[in-house]
Amino acid sequence: MHQSNYGREGFSHITVAGALAHGMKEVEVWLQTFGPGKKTPIHRHSCEEVFVVLKGKGTLLLGSSSFKHPGQPQEIPVFQNSTFTIPVNDPHQVWNSDEHEDLQVLVIISRPPIKIFIYDDWSMPHTAAKLKFPYYWDEDCLSAPKDEL
Amino acid sequence: MHQSNYGREGFSHITVAGALAHGMKEVEVWLQTFGPGKKTPIHRHSCEEVFVVLKGKGTLLLGSSSFKHPGQPQEIPVFQNSTFTIPVNDPHQVWNSDEHEDLQVLVIISRPPIKIFIYDDWSMPHTAAKLKFPYYWDEDCLSAPKDEL
Repeated sequence: MHQSNYGREGFSHITVAGALAHGMKEVEVWLQTFGPGKKTPIHRHSCEEVFVVLKGKGTLLLGSSSFKHPGQPQEIPVFQNSTFTIPVNDPHQVWNSDEHEDLQVLVIISRPPIKIFIYDDWSMPHTAAKLKFPYYWDEDCLSAPKDEL
Repeated sequence: MHQSNYGREGFSHITVAGALAHGMKEVEVWLQTFGPGKKTPIHRHSCEEVFVVLKGKGTLLLGSSSFKHPGQPQEIPVFQNSTFTIPVNDPHQVWNSDEHEDLQVLVIISRPPIKIFIYDDWSMPHTAAKLKFPYYWDEDCLSAPKDEL
């Protein structure tokens, strides 16, 4: 399986079962590792998402989809062997808020490949969030030559 | 979270993110542990399924959906940190074929709650496999009183 940091220092992503890489149609599974202090972008998506924390601990920052912009996020501690789910369309950010240990998570999404809308900050209106599609790890597969003749 | 063996000795199941327990609509995640020698029933389902092996090793027995009955299954070794997917509708059985260690897996399915068709053996016609719905761990939730007024 292909592992890369996709240009993000202190980050690692592997698609362990994916739509483009393995023909999944309904679910996709990733293994991601965040070094101390590392974060995902603030983002939202209209699919379901489940995180299972395999190692380390961190913080889930969770905004709201009910107002014009995400607003001040809730800070939810996450830790080894915990599971958390992201409400559909809620802006969120996963942050390894620990200073020493890596945070390793299995991520499960529905409706792959993922369509991610990225926010510059928590006060950006939902309508201004920018679609990044295909997402970085899906670009590899889309640009690869097809198997079929 | 509720852990039970659902009447199967040497087995443990936890629904870590589920349709009935947690309101998931598109994916469901289970944590399952099989003692040495323990197996799932031979079964099929029309959803996608991904296994991530967290601990131990075992054997995936995989039949075919292309003939009248599953037939002699392939025997596919599985081991810690490996991932395997089950083709939609293919009859299969997960077996902790190790004599000493537990096999622990995260299981991801689409389209919950799961509708499982169970076979008595590999020569049983697909049309004779018996639907068990709701499945054992979903019965708990369905029989529980609802939250809503």
